[in-house]
Amino acid sequence: MTADVRAAARRLKPGGLGEASARDLLAPLDLPFVPATPVRSADEAVAVARDFGFPVVLKALTDDVLHKSDAGLVELGLATADAVSAAHDRLVERVTALGAADARVVVQPMAQPGTDLILGWVRDPTFGPVVVAGLGGVTVELFRDVARRVAPVTVDDADEMLRSLRCAPLLTGFRGAAPVDTEQFSELVARVSELALAVPELSELDLNPVRVLADGTCVVLDARVVVEPVTAVEPRGSAPDLTALLRPRSIAVVGASRDATRPGARILASLREHGFAGELHPVNPAGGEVGGLPAVTSLSELPGVPDLVCVALPAKAAVESVRDCVRLGVPAVIVFASGFGEAGAAGQALEAELRAAVAGSATTLCGPNTIGVVSAHHRMAATFSQAITGFPLRESGTCLIAQSGAVAGSLVSRELADGYGIGDWVTVGNQSQVDVADYLEHFTTLDTTRSIAVFLEGVPDGDRFRRALSAARTRGVPVAVFKTGVTEAGRRAVSSHSGALAGSGEAYRAVLAQESAVQVTELTGLLEIAWTLGNTPRPAGGRVAVVTTSGGAGSATADLIDQHGLALAAFEERTAADLAAVLPAFAHVDDPLDITAEGTFAEGTVRRVVELVAGDPGVDLVCVVLTSIAGEDAVRVARQIADAAGGSPKPVLVSWLVTRSLAADGMALLAGRGIRVFTEPARMVAAAAALVSAPQPRSTRV
Amino acid sequence: MTADVRAAARRLKPGGLGEASARDLLAPLDLPFVPATPVRSADEAVAVARDFGFPVVLKALTDDVLHKSDAGLVELGLATADAVSAAHDRLVERVTALGAADARVVVQPMAQPGTDLILGWVRDPTFGPVVVAGLGGVTVELFRDVARRVAPVTVDDADEMLRSLRCAPLLTGFRGAAPVDTEQFSELVARVSELALAVPELSELDLNPVRVLADGTCVVLDARVVVEPVTAVEPRGSAPDLTALLRPRSIAVVGASRDATRPGARILASLREHGFAGELHPVNPAGGEVGGLPAVTSLSELPGVPDLVCVALPAKAAVESVRDCVRLGVPAVIVFASGFGEAGAAGQALEAELRAAVAGSATTLCGPNTIGVVSAHHRMAATFSQAITGFPLRESGTCLIAQSGAVAGSLVSRELADGYGIGDWVTVGNQSQVDVADYLEHFTTLDTTRSIAVFLEGVPDGDRFRRALSAARTRGVPVAVFKTGVTEAGRRAVSSHSGALAGSGEAYRAVLAQESAVQVTELTGLLEIAWTLGNTPRPAGGRVAVVTTSGGAGSATADLIDQHGLALAAFEERTAADLAAVLPAFAHVDDPLDITAEGTFAEGTVRRVVELVAGDPGVDLVCVVLTSIAGEDAVRVARQIADAAGGSPKPVLVSWLVTRSLAADGMALLAGRGIRVFTEPARMVAAAAALVSAPQPRSTRV
Repeated sequence: MTADVRAAARRLKPGGLGEASARDLLAPLDLPFVPATPVRSADEAVAVARDFGFPVVLKALTDDVLHKSDAGLVELGLATADAVSAAHDRLVERVTALGAADARVVVQPMAQPGTDLILGWVRDPTFGPVVVAGLGGVTVELFRDVARRVAPVTVDDADEMLRSLRCAPLLTGFRGAAPVDTEQFSELVARVSELALAVPELSELDLNPVRVLADGTCVVLDARVVVEPVTAVEPRGSAPDLTALLRPRSIAVVGASRDATRPGARILASLREHGFAGELHPVNPAGGEVGGLPAVTSLSELPGVPDLVCVALPAKAAVESVRDCVRLGVPAVIVFASGFGEAGAAGQALEAELRAAVAGSATTLCGPNTIGVVSAHHRMAATFSQAITGFPLRESGTCLIAQSGAVAGSLVSRELADGYGIGDWVTVGNQSQVDVADYLEHFTTLDTTRSIAVFLEGVPDGDRFRRALSAARTRGVPVAVFKTGVTEAGRRAVSSHSGALAGSGEAYRAVLAQESAVQVTELTGLLEIAWTLGNTPRPAGGRVAVVTTSGGAGSATADLIDQHGLALAAFEERTAADLAAVLPAFAHVDDPLDITAEGTFAEGTVRRVVELVAGDPGVDLVCVVLTSIAGEDAVRVARQIADAAGGSPKPVLVSWLVTRSLAADGMALLAGRGIRVFTEPARMVAAAAALVSAPQPRSTRV
Repeated sequence: MTADVRAAARRLKPGGLGEASARDLLAPLDLPFVPATPVRSADEAVAVARDFGFPVVLKALTDDVLHKSDAGLVELGLATADAVSAAHDRLVERVTALGAADARVVVQPMAQPGTDLILGWVRDPTFGPVVVAGLGGVTVELFRDVARRVAPVTVDDADEMLRSLRCAPLLTGFRGAAPVDTEQFSELVARVSELALAVPELSELDLNPVRVLADGTCVVLDARVVVEPVTAVEPRGSAPDLTALLRPRSIAVVGASRDATRPGARILASLREHGFAGELHPVNPAGGEVGGLPAVTSLSELPGVPDLVCVALPAKAAVESVRDCVRLGVPAVIVFASGFGEAGAAGQALEAELRAAVAGSATTLCGPNTIGVVSAHHRMAATFSQAITGFPLRESGTCLIAQSGAVAGSLVSRELADGYGIGDWVTVGNQSQVDVADYLEHFTTLDTTRSIAVFLEGVPDGDRFRRALSAARTRGVPVAVFKTGVTEAGRRAVSSHSGALAGSGEAYRAVLAQESAVQVTELTGLLEIAWTLGNTPRPAGGRVAVVTTSGGAGSATADLIDQHGLALAAFEERTAADLAAVLPAFAHVDDPLDITAEGTFAEGTVRRVVELVAGDPGVDLVCVVLTSIAGEDAVRVARQIADAAGGSPKPVLVSWLVTRSLAADGMALLAGRGIRVFTEPARMVAAAAALVSAPQPRSTRV
């Protein structure tokens, strides 16, 4: 039946269709439309009304008018033959005045009272149909109380959508009202989702309202569809093998320069500084020695084929070099130069050449317009970024995939400076060949990976991105995403500065939620949250014990816990008694637990307090909020927290308010012991909430 | 008339009153209640119904039932005598079953259709009646679309409340519907506000719904009040003179110890380290020399009376010392010790003694339970906090009033470490005498003050706090507030750890909004925002130019600008042409303006770009977002930004993503030139939004 709809849709010209045309188009599906009988005269209208029984509704239907009610084309509650007759004539008059040639008048029975919902979809350029369901009528427009899911949407999914609405209590029985039976509505959602996938020519559908009657029967009172030509999406190839790119045994740097400020020189220096252990070959047309290593004048001079070639040449020369790599059968190439798709028509032509050079070959391409690839596990820093210069690479289960080199470099520099690590990270550049989804899928399969951070502008293939997220979830690898272009303003900025396909913020939000990825709201919180997800035990629930040296900071943290949907724990009597025995007499045992600065003076108190609250069965995770604990005190307190956390299977997070320079050693100690230190309580609580909601990790990794 | 209501309310016993009792109580006010005629039989009900005209409503009214409809005590749309008669008997049956002795049945005419609003108040323990108005009916409970204002509420205020609702379009004419005339409703709001102030015995009032008819007529369809005994609020004395506390010419430190770890020793050391220029006297019973200064054995040994005495003794001894100060006529005393009101019954008794010691005297008391008072303007650091040790005090127009010493010390340490200053700051402790409102009022009057930050748990006197905020606004001094205890969870934490009166989060939110104070949402953003408000030119509007070295970071910032209700600027053609001439060929001229890292290489480019965008008449403020600009490049770029900002009357804010250690010199240069550097774009945009919404400063200060 959907095939019939599709055939009909293909014959239509693009544009919006009103109720009558939508009814005609969707007729093969037998949707529960309210009956509507076209009439050609007032007398006929009266006769039909008598058949239906009074009162009735008369409408004038035309594709030219979007809001029929606003245009006076709907006459409700017509209770007598005279009223019907008069209404018919008024409608004819109005459509004549509007000059709507396609208009026809229909008679409908008045629908019984019920709850009005909206159901429909909007087709997103990246992810396809996003199904929308929610409260209908005027309120939907003001309160936007709708749930969104990318199709397919099952009946269970639809139930979940309805449960997520703010107006959900209206459906489940509010204030003594009878609950609304939504079973048939959820089935209708699933059918509509199928239709959306089967008929790509329909870019939008609105069934609004769908009235749900007391017995659960659904009646569609109005409908609207939009027809758009289908643009064929180029299918992407299968996921490439990225082993040579991320774990190369040998690397050649084309464009290795003697000028230390050139990218080629920096890449070579970075590889050496961070201790790449494999073969390393500078390639320089002049030969000789570069960066202390013997250079070859061309790739073909090398005794074997290197696993990875770093092409540090300007755009045009880089394309030529990539062709050489393909000829030689090089498994992996990174093109660093900008000046491709992001740089106008000439650059786009060059990028097409680049894409063609690797198409169908065994060569995988990272970039162009990337700052490179770094793996702490493999001690490989193939990057010209100076943001990590001087910092040792630290192994970590956290990976980073970034669509902005500058952002990635900055965020990684913070992690390294603060004592945290990133396992593998890549900046994807223009994603000419290998894209975000490929890296995501690859990182998910590595045994070293515990969590993945993604700085995302847009993906070329929504389906593959979604499948990669889904695979990560299945494998127990939590993914944290910072997505730009979530608002109109941001979206414009994305498309103006790169070739990325931003999709709509709402569609990304829906996909990330559906696949249990964490959408991070502060840019600089991305790696913080990803690291916490990858390096902290998963709590069994959301009951938080707050241990603090300041009542004020504790109270602020309590607010945040409430706002993030977590709860303060209630200590067991025994825990409370043990705490009272440990703490100074003036301390008040409660959650938040304010041990005061004095409470940290006696050796062992902090350790014992954290042990006690972590040991309480009513506590799922511990948040420690420190204020002006500085210098040697900082180290002493940090060690006690780390000792207590090390002996507990529950997560312990720390927020430390004093300036970093005063407590640097304490903070470094905690980082070294695998405990995250946040400088703002709101960020700590956001990470705690992410931990609580993240999918359970693979059992082999706990 | 309100006097009659009050007299009646005083005779009532505490508890909730339903519609009937509320009508009786409020009768003297002549509120537009829908008519309701009590009836004693079915026949009488029919007769009354005939008088009103069918259809009618029958209700059984009783104070015992909160939700009449849920209990089946409302019968709507009774169109015939038989229906009225049957409904009457059903209602009698139900109230008999409920055993509601006070129940009476009333007949009401059916109200005409209209828009249902809610109007009422809740009495907040701190601020008194908070008037609530919004959309009525079931939706109000689910969407909580209500506006709140602390009384008095004028008719203009009421109009503003209605305009602030999400459902406001329903009132102003949505989707072709006629607008609702809300003039009479706003007048009703003002009358209700007067009533709330005049009758303190009424702790709650609900007129729900108030139906607003097409012609603007208001009909109150249901009402409920709650009567509570009035607790007399102790009036606070008039604002004390704080000059001696903040600008003392001489200071004595009682409890100055030779043990450097004791508070008394630290206070003395802090005063000396930060260069207090007045007389300084250690007081120690053993006499001799303390901290390199000759000590006296008691205050009475001093040749004159010091302006300020710092009492660094344990609680009990401190009370004794304060009595000495009062006897000697010391103008100002700080009591540092804890162990007072926050420490159980014994502490509360001690605090009562302390309060009694200074009551009626000329001595002003800061604390107890405070870390002290610091003034950079007066080079006085009367504190035992080690958070500022080693940092030079920096003069600044920003003041801080904090209800938590630990939080204040931590936040100030960050400001000083990052190169910013705080002019005067005080931690108020238990506010035994001088409270937050006093400090706020005093700081507002100082010529040195440009902005005030407040870390707030609660105030003892809501009215005085509000007047102090109002005075600040009038004098053009913006106030930024971080309030704890905004949620249930946080509120519990506040009252458990100190004697503070938290009030409800919503009442504080309403007061802060009414007085144009900025409510800060991240604890560590408090001083950041306050400093920005005090040290940055005020923009004329909310059109932001974003200049960035990273497209990705620019796009993220664009999202934030949209989310905060600001707008990206549209450059004039001339600006765009000038920018194109300055920037590398590949750069795309747009807002956000991505100049790329390469765009910072040529000397003068950054300066020229910032000058050009700041010079565009369509730009109100400039936000610069830097990524991995580090080392010498950082200083070079920072200098150019500072030079450009210095030549413009428009605010320039900077967000810098790379780790501080890599760009420390550049960040310090900007701080030294009065430009705020944020480490997270979201915090920068929050500060920008605060700048845009802050009241205009006094003209003498621009």
